[in-house]
Amino acid sequence: MEPWPCDAIGVLLVRYMDRREFGGDMDERFIPLTETVRALPATTPFVGPEALERTNGAVFKARIGANESAFGPSPKALAAMRDAVAEASWYGDPENFELRQAIAAHHGVGMDNVCVAAGIDSLLGLVVRMLVSPGAPIVTSLGAYPTFNYQVSGFGGALHTVPYRNDFEDPEALLDKAKAVEAPLLYVANPDNPMGSWHGAASVQSLIDSVPTGKVLILDEAYADFLDPVEIPAIDVSNPCVIRMRTFSKAHGLAGARVGYAIAHPALITGLNKIRNQFEVTRVSQAGALAAFQDPQYVGQVVAEVAAGKADIAKIASKHGFTALPSATNFVAIDVGGHEQATRMMAELGRRGVFIRMPGAAPLNRCIRVTVGTEKDRAVFADALADVVASGG
Amino acid sequence: MEPWPCDAIGVLLVRYMDRREFGGDMDERFIPLTETVRALPATTPFVGPEALERTNGAVFKARIGANESAFGPSPKALAAMRDAVAEASWYGDPENFELRQAIAAHHGVGMDNVCVAAGIDSLLGLVVRMLVSPGAPIVTSLGAYPTFNYQVSGFGGALHTVPYRNDFEDPEALLDKAKAVEAPLLYVANPDNPMGSWHGAASVQSLIDSVPTGKVLILDEAYADFLDPVEIPAIDVSNPCVIRMRTFSKAHGLAGARVGYAIAHPALITGLNKIRNQFEVTRVSQAGALAAFQDPQYVGQVVAEVAAGKADIAKIASKHGFTALPSATNFVAIDVGGHEQATRMMAELGRRGVFIRMPGAAPLNRCIRVTVGTEKDRAVFADALADVVASGG
Repeated sequence: MEPWPCDAIGVLLVRYMDRREFGGDMDERFIPLTETVRALPATTPFVGPEALERTNGAVFKARIGANESAFGPSPKALAAMRDAVAEASWYGDPENFELRQAIAAHHGVGMDNVCVAAGIDSLLGLVVRMLVSPGAPIVTSLGAYPTFNYQVSGFGGALHTVPYRNDFEDPEALLDKAKAVEAPLLYVANPDNPMGSWHGAASVQSLIDSVPTGKVLILDEAYADFLDPVEIPAIDVSNPCVIRMRTFSKAHGLAGARVGYAIAHPALITGLNKIRNQFEVTRVSQAGALAAFQDPQYVGQVVAEVAAGKADIAKIASKHGFTALPSATNFVAIDVGGHEQATRMMAELGRRGVFIRMPGAAPLNRCIRVTVGTEKDRAVFADALADVVASGG
Repeated sequence: MEPWPCDAIGVLLVRYMDRREFGGDMDERFIPLTETVRALPATTPFVGPEALERTNGAVFKARIGANESAFGPSPKALAAMRDAVAEASWYGDPENFELRQAIAAHHGVGMDNVCVAAGIDSLLGLVVRMLVSPGAPIVTSLGAYPTFNYQVSGFGGALHTVPYRNDFEDPEALLDKAKAVEAPLLYVANPDNPMGSWHGAASVQSLIDSVPTGKVLILDEAYADFLDPVEIPAIDVSNPCVIRMRTFSKAHGLAGARVGYAIAHPALITGLNKIRNQFEVTRVSQAGALAAFQDPQYVGQVVAEVAAGKADIAKIASKHGFTALPSATNFVAIDVGGHEQATRMMAELGRRGVFIRMPGAAPLNRCIRVTVGTEKDRAVFADALADVVASGG
């Protein structure tokens, strides 16, 4: 068996050399990467708390940085998952049938309007892959969800960003930008992450109505469960210009189980089904998500606990003269007066065992972002914050 | 807020119409799909057994069609997963650190040589995305793993197939084809699915050595655990021309948990890390895979049980004059004499509560493919097969 010949200059150069010489220094020129992947930086949207713990050599006392639910999933979901472990050797149902059936019934849509995947992260990747050709201009807010940006860059899209307006995503400016660059895809999160702000139903409906046929709005509603239902515009699956996204990661407390869903016009769902990894939701996660979905009472309790927690965090912040921004999520952005202060505070809190995060762009990054933890988490946060402030933080 | 203007003809035509008129008949022309996705058929690589059960209105008595492990995961993995359910509200470690550490130590490679993802299906998608530009010629065997083809088509690659040779993948012919079309990527599974055949270490090493710098071989070793270790060529991560893939879905009994890994040169792993969904392995699955990996004794038991089961299936087949092909996997391809017979037999077995599958291309599809189940599964299969044969099947 002989190597087959290659045309590329780089390949010709090394063809007759022992490739082992390149060892760990192998240049990416010798790997046949696509143009898109070759151009990507080796970055990730987030560093996980486990990586920080490994760096710090200590486990966090309060894990309130990734907007995970401190209240866990419904006991029914826990029980369903423990039971489902016995079937872990079986692939999950690639059609996610039972879960899609429950979701469709709940939202009053057809099963062909629902795509279940391994979290909104996976769905964002699929939608971008489906709609974004290399070089296509894509619009989002400056400082919004980094994983959307990661997916857009990952498929070669060109990001165009619009500043927040008073810590709110700015629908009119986003639409203007999309119009100017002729973006096929526009991303809006409502409620917003990382600021916690939100627009009401009329405003969001107006945004949806302003998207012309042939363009698509991703409406990321990961935090919709924390919003008063009257603030959420009705779902209209006859409209091919919007994809609504929901997740089990937040109010349902199943971030580690990786289950989210998209609701959209069947033509969009068909597109997603053409390219998704059919078996990607684990069997245990399918069982957990279905049980969680069927326990809205528990979600209601979580939402109430989160509301109380947000009030608590606002008090803790104001004690030191900081302002907690209004939030319709399970976290609070606290304005600490400037980016340098926020950076220093995040580091100092980390040193005291408190894992939080910070928005990634100015002027949002004058804030720290604190997830509503348990009462104990908040006590740890309050003590650490007081200590940081007392020591000049 | 006003819709932004569009240039595309289709869009102009519908701009002033009520888009709701299109309803369920919305033509894909009005969705801004990429060329690649627009061209894709709405097919999936596999129909799951659950879908067949829904169609049949009955649950299978023997689920021996998807090469899942009938012996389940290690009891230690089950326990670890049940424990980890309590942490399902936390995202998994996006770096899969502990699991990668264990994998790297076991294979004697660096952690930067290992990428963990949600099964080989996910890894195949990532590698194809990383290396395959639309139109690129990609080589595989005719009738080999359909999910590889799904991923290649899904990213716009052009599949070139090479026939099996006496039910074995044909390395020389595959290399010749790759040479002829100048394929950046070549796929070989060893042991093979769906035939169960395998090439020994020297032959596979020769294949690896024949891949020139600048091209990449995916060596899918999902079933490597069932192979005598001396039949597996040594892993050499200084070679940037090969990506070895392993899974927890087969011998480790964790198909439903979605965990697999790639071992390769750091430049290839870096490429995968640039584009993978960082959080895609669930927290429960991480715990299960780590515990399973640390229980090689259990895997040894499974492999022994599977060997006994394969001998059993060969006997069942020969009783009816059918030939069970030699297999280094957890399934057996049984030659039933022709494609029509195989098709009819699969349907008739299905009617009798036995889920099996069939290779997808001639001449392999003269066989049915039967996963080694439990003793009880095999008894159900034996009875159903006898009944099918007796009734003229």
